[in-house]
Amino acid sequence: MGGNKIVVYKEPGRVVVEDHDPPKLEVPADVSKSKGLTQKAVHGVILRNVATNICGSDQHMVRGRTTAPPGQTLGHEITGEIVEKGEDVQFLDVGDIVSVPFNIACGRCRNCHEGQTGVCLNVNPARAGSAYGYVDMGGWAGGQAEYVMVPFADFNCLKFPDRNQALEKILDLTMLSDIFPTGYHGAHTAGVTTGSTVYVAGAGPVGLAAAHSAQLLGAAVVIVGDLNKQRLEQARSFGCETVDISLDATLEDQIAEILGTNEVDCAVDAVGFEASGHGADAGEQPAAVLNSVMSITRAGGRLGIPGLYVTGDPGAPDPDAKEGTLKVRLGLGWAKSHAFTTGQCPVLRYNRGLMMSILHGKAQIAKAVNATVIPLDDAPRGYQEFDKGAARKYVIDPHGMIPKAA
Amino acid sequence: MGGNKIVVYKEPGRVVVEDHDPPKLEVPADVSKSKGLTQKAVHGVILRNVATNICGSDQHMVRGRTTAPPGQTLGHEITGEIVEKGEDVQFLDVGDIVSVPFNIACGRCRNCHEGQTGVCLNVNPARAGSAYGYVDMGGWAGGQAEYVMVPFADFNCLKFPDRNQALEKILDLTMLSDIFPTGYHGAHTAGVTTGSTVYVAGAGPVGLAAAHSAQLLGAAVVIVGDLNKQRLEQARSFGCETVDISLDATLEDQIAEILGTNEVDCAVDAVGFEASGHGADAGEQPAAVLNSVMSITRAGGRLGIPGLYVTGDPGAPDPDAKEGTLKVRLGLGWAKSHAFTTGQCPVLRYNRGLMMSILHGKAQIAKAVNATVIPLDDAPRGYQEFDKGAARKYVIDPHGMIPKAA
Amino acid sequence: MGGNKIVVYKEPGRVVVEDHDPPKLEVPADVSKSKGLTQKAVHGVILRNVATNICGSDQHMVRGRTTAPPGQTLGHEITGEIVEKGEDVQFLDVGDIVSVPFNIACGRCRNCHEGQTGVCLNVNPARAGSAYGYVDMGGWAGGQAEYVMVPFADFNCLKFPDRNQALEKILDLTMLSDIFPTGYHGAHTAGVTTGSTVYVAGAGPVGLAAAHSAQLLGAAVVIVGDLNKQRLEQARSFGCETVDISLDATLEDQIAEILGTNEVDCAVDAVGFEASGHGADAGEQPAAVLNSVMSITRAGGRLGIPGLYVTGDPGAPDPDAKEGTLKVRLGLGWAKSHAFTTGQCPVLRYNRGLMMSILHGKAQIAKAVNATVIPLDDAPRGYQEFDKGAARKYVIDPHGMIPKAA
Amino acid sequence: MGGNKIVVYKEPGRVVVEDHDPPKLEVPADVSKSKGLTQKAVHGVILRNVATNICGSDQHMVRGRTTAPPGQTLGHEITGEIVEKGEDVQFLDVGDIVSVPFNIACGRCRNCHEGQTGVCLNVNPARAGSAYGYVDMGGWAGGQAEYVMVPFADFNCLKFPDRNQALEKILDLTMLSDIFPTGYHGAHTAGVTTGSTVYVAGAGPVGLAAAHSAQLLGAAVVIVGDLNKQRLEQARSFGCETVDISLDATLEDQIAEILGTNEVDCAVDAVGFEASGHGADAGEQPAAVLNSVMSITRAGGRLGIPGLYVTGDPGAPDPDAKEGTLKVRLGLGWAKSHAFTTGQCPVLRYNRGLMMSILHGKAQIAKAVNATVIPLDDAPRGYQEFDKGAARKYVIDPHGMIPKAA
Repeated sequence: MGGNKIVVYKEPGRVVVEDHDPPKLEVPADVSKSKGLTQKAVHGVILRNVATNICGSDQHMVRGRTTAPPGQTLGHEITGEIVEKGEDVQFLDVGDIVSVPFNIACGRCRNCHEGQTGVCLNVNPARAGSAYGYVDMGGWAGGQAEYVMVPFADFNCLKFPDRNQALEKILDLTMLSDIFPTGYHGAHTAGVTTGSTVYVAGAGPVGLAAAHSAQLLGAAVVIVGDLNKQRLEQARSFGCETVDISLDATLEDQIAEILGTNEVDCAVDAVGFEASGHGADAGEQPAAVLNSVMSITRAGGRLGIPGLYVTGDPGAPDPDAKEGTLKVRLGLGWAKSHAFTTGQCPVLRYNRGLMMSILHGKAQIAKAVNATVIPLDDAPRGYQEFDKGAARKYVIDPHGMIPKAA
Repeated sequence: MGGNKIVVYKEPGRVVVEDHDPPKLEVPADVSKSKGLTQKAVHGVILRNVATNICGSDQHMVRGRTTAPPGQTLGHEITGEIVEKGEDVQFLDVGDIVSVPFNIACGRCRNCHEGQTGVCLNVNPARAGSAYGYVDMGGWAGGQAEYVMVPFADFNCLKFPDRNQALEKILDLTMLSDIFPTGYHGAHTAGVTTGSTVYVAGAGPVGLAAAHSAQLLGAAVVIVGDLNKQRLEQARSFGCETVDISLDATLEDQIAEILGTNEVDCAVDAVGFEASGHGADAGEQPAAVLNSVMSITRAGGRLGIPGLYVTGDPGAPDPDAKEGTLKVRLGLGWAKSHAFTTGQCPVLRYNRGLMMSILHGKAQIAKAVNATVIPLDDAPRGYQEFDKGAARKYVIDPHGMIPKAA
Repeated sequence: MGGNKIVVYKEPGRVVVEDHDPPKLEVPADVSKSKGLTQKAVHGVILRNVATNICGSDQHMVRGRTTAPPGQTLGHEITGEIVEKGEDVQFLDVGDIVSVPFNIACGRCRNCHEGQTGVCLNVNPARAGSAYGYVDMGGWAGGQAEYVMVPFADFNCLKFPDRNQALEKILDLTMLSDIFPTGYHGAHTAGVTTGSTVYVAGAGPVGLAAAHSAQLLGAAVVIVGDLNKQRLEQARSFGCETVDISLDATLEDQIAEILGTNEVDCAVDAVGFEASGHGADAGEQPAAVLNSVMSITRAGGRLGIPGLYVTGDPGAPDPDAKEGTLKVRLGLGWAKSHAFTTGQCPVLRYNRGLMMSILHGKAQIAKAVNATVIPLDDAPRGYQEFDKGAARKYVIDPHGMIPKAA
Repeated sequence: MGGNKIVVYKEPGRVVVEDHDPPKLEVPADVSKSKGLTQKAVHGVILRNVATNICGSDQHMVRGRTTAPPGQTLGHEITGEIVEKGEDVQFLDVGDIVSVPFNIACGRCRNCHEGQTGVCLNVNPARAGSAYGYVDMGGWAGGQAEYVMVPFADFNCLKFPDRNQALEKILDLTMLSDIFPTGYHGAHTAGVTTGSTVYVAGAGPVGLAAAHSAQLLGAAVVIVGDLNKQRLEQARSFGCETVDISLDATLEDQIAEILGTNEVDCAVDAVGFEASGHGADAGEQPAAVLNSVMSITRAGGRLGIPGLYVTGDPGAPDPDAKEGTLKVRLGLGWAKSHAFTTGQCPVLRYNRGLMMSILHGKAQIAKAVNATVIPLDDAPRGYQEFDKGAARKYVIDPHGMIPKAA
């Protein structure tokens, strides 16, 4: 570890790869001071990153749709090899390859006790919940880098049982740090089970992960909606039905065409606040997706909302939306007795089971999201292509450790 | 049964008691035609009503805040004695006293099978879910009357085990038809359990029922908020803490004063769309309550929303709200990983257990909501006083069957 | 309907096909008298049976391992076409093809309200719960027949959406009346979910159905154990691993061979009281399966027990077992914090979702259990072959309605 | 800390108070070696014990009904003040008063992640799950002592918010380390909720805690059974009904006398393997309680089994029972579709909520179990009196810190 090449946000539309100091076993000063932790992180590990992905939620920052400042380091989808560990890391060793949940969690507070690791109380001065390389999340360094520090490592890290097997399946396993559990959380909290009909709004990586998760949960039919034809094609490639929301035909009608009824049992909003309205030139309408999924979900159904809604959006179309206040058809949802689950996925609740599904060949998440490997230096290109709507999930390979065949 | 005196909505602000034909064992023609039922209701019973209450949701109609037409019969909180039964009523007999869930349910559709009796698929041509004496609910006659027809009686009716005991406790038991289960549903879906701190928005009958339910569910502290001082006094009378939202002090500050922290574990919105903003002259703000409960519910908490939100409100302050589209701080809720449960309470899920609590002296719901008996002819006065904010729950006694002592 | 050919138990080892009077819309006299029902079943339908299967639990009677008297009519796995309906059947029509849960349920009692249709309180004088054609179950006529009466039909029957599609998939759909939901119940109550490792004891039809259900629920690995090599081969045919309990190698060792650890996450006992001990000549040991699944289920795991345990077994090896009292390693289960779910599967909780899985091609249950069609007159042969351990599920086709291709 | 006075088991029927070396921040050598932990416990704290109780499960050891060797230190119900902490204790400070779950848990393994702290995988070489001062639990020193070491302290310790308030309520709060959560777990896993009728077998401290928990969970009626008249009197003192199993009248009849029906909704076995049969001279029958609760629990009901069943009982009446194999009426349970939950209570799942109930005056557990303070030197007397059936819960006060008024 001479230095640490890392992806950094510079201004709207621009990220660069910079060389920073290598990470130490230390928690950010703000967190330490505000939450009473020792700065020294005897509970932490340093990882050599094996795979670290670009996420749709990174794009919100890079597009200038958050309050992220220039200099913000990026990356919260991390899989790596332990190269150093603190004195209180009891159950992991140097050389282990581990998946790291994007949620940073202490494992010791009330919320962590209750399995709500997405809203840990001890790792972010600003609010409950935290993540690596993200605005308003406590200043933890990003993981789109050669190395990264992971605190409370025994609690947070999911160790792969076999190193060689892990490297072989690394393109699938790298999705365990965020999008696979996040998509699964969406499907699970939407109540998807054996025989369900499911609508997933959004065919980006989280939407595709939700769709594949719905399949694993036993859905009878999974329908994915988007206005990007390439991404819809990707959804069809693994057995999903699709609807094109850029068409004039309503969502109800397109769903009826597929199912013979214009309602589904369960719906997932995998889009969030940068939503587009229905139709060719609808433009951005922050509540459009949430409202449309209410209209096509059956009475008594549930909605999983892994798509991100924010409390501050400088680029929003109106003053309310700038503060995260959206025009929601609450009367409709209430009339249908809908239940809604929002928020960050608590990755630890799901990642072990999904790992087992990958290792035993039941889940093919890399294929579903079209995992595409790029070197760390190409991260800026990955961001650009992804922003343009490429039907790909970009996986950064900082050390050339990802086998060609994977 | 010569005739059937019944409460009827005439125009905004005015209800009258009219004499109609007595009910028959028949389903409404619209329901029969649209849903394929025989008009003859061999599954139904005719009840002589023992107690039938005025509900806050009736007031929405009477205030002209729904599309209810003049002539709409009223009343969905029904407890009565069976005087006639159809040929397929197998497990009830003439003379039984029963509580009737306000939700009409067939007991035979998918949603009823799944316990979602609030969104039965077979009893309302307009949408899932139905009720007696309510707009857009299929045309079932209201129960603020001497007699009423209850379909699918074996499924819907909760029989009291002993007639004398039932009449003694009738002021408690009459709350089983709606507000007690509805309040309980709010508290239950908000996740209230042993040791919870709970905020209930609204000190009307449903709010007070939610507060008492939270106590039964084991809450450590129950805080009720309203701007009506008389209703807050009523909440304090059975051990609740209160906050006065007409004061300048914020909700957060008033809660912190009580708990030492400005967040609660669980929150119940028992107000719905006719909400007032915070402060002395805030006026009507349809999403005010929902947004405020998000701000004071802890990250990872849940919100129960039994308060009614509608799809059409002719009296709403703006065009969006007229269609039930409200300005919701979705970004805030998402950041706190909130989960929301909306909709009609499926009464059957709860009424048997709550009946047991009443019969064994564990629940004192009549006292909590200040049950007040009036004769049927005084129903118009009951509506008026209730609309003015009386801290009372009006119980109509059509046949003078309610014992004085009760 | 001139008469009604029906399968009847005569003495241990012998069943015959007799010609009885056709069924009427009437409930058994004992049930009517003891439970207060009208004898006339206006809620019932008469079915022309399309497919009706022989079940392992029928074999307990036929082997003389229950108190079933000679003359007991048989058959509780029923799929048929409605040929007559009572006046209170509102949502089904003559000509509909429906699946009938083997549990008879009134749909109107507390247990039915709570989804516990396996222990309905109103249809059996002897105890909670009932079934067609079974000892101690209230005297309802068996369904291995040309025709059968189904009470409370709106509640009990699952209607297939399309007649032609139903006939095409009839060999799968016929499993919805019992073994598919029963196996699913076992897997579900054992906690099987995405990524689980699962052991299913018993490779008879219920065990195979549990194994396939575990796959649908997302299991990473499903291991089936039996001592019948043909049935183990059947299990392997759809992707299960197997262990042979007739071998000397212990169950733990055989599982470790497959998984690398000698414990699974979840276990299903699909054998019940006619269990064999481990090893070549172990012989019958009623608690052997239950005890062995405790030994190989991880601490904190759950056990689903759809396999039948009875309260009276005339053929049991010892006096305790004759009364259903077995030697259970309770200390072991307690030390591992196991949870156990026993009893009849409440079919209605699962059959709709499983039907959707079949209709949309996600479940291949007929193939998994090796469905084999026989005419009604061949039922005695089916019983014999099945008793000898044929790796087949016998489906009786009373009217030649099952398409050859199915 | 010059030395550490501690209660030690010497031989059946005899415990003594010895002076040992004070505890260090070290894990037992066996655990360290077998599980790979550092011997140095930087995650641990040393407590000055404020209150530490004698438990019924200690009596199993002291009566010679386990394989505990002479010299076994005792005590797993611990509440204390932190006097020293390791370097990785981040969220606790010297001077904090904390409650310690009797289950030792690492907070970092799969089971701890899933909330199953009663079967932690990392703290006991012999099996999953551990405890302080108990046989086969890894050799952790007992807490009936002046001082004790608590590992993984941030995860395990429940900090009381205010020192003075904690000392005032210490007799209630001391029950959080075991019996209150254990009783609650029994009631909760038995499905007790609003309006339930409940039977609790056993009026020892865990039974009384289960009974009080059932009240907190909203039970309509709680019935406690025992053959010790003094303990039954104690149960009646806080509103329970009672049945005396030493009488000739059957359990069913005694329950029918109270409820008007001979079945309850939910049952808790708070006795375990040292059970007595029904009637005056029935003597010990290890499965008697479990079997009797099946007989009086309704079909579809659930049984919580916090009472201890062991894998080795040298004093058992027969060879099967010596290995924890008991004669269980499995056929009866199956016929009633019972579900059973066994095992150590995972204290962390409940202790925070129960603490809130105590601090806000909703739970009066000390009164329910008749908490009785004794000095450490009197522990042998406490053991003796408790063994003789005193209706008391003995609370040891090693440092005279318990206020007289408490």
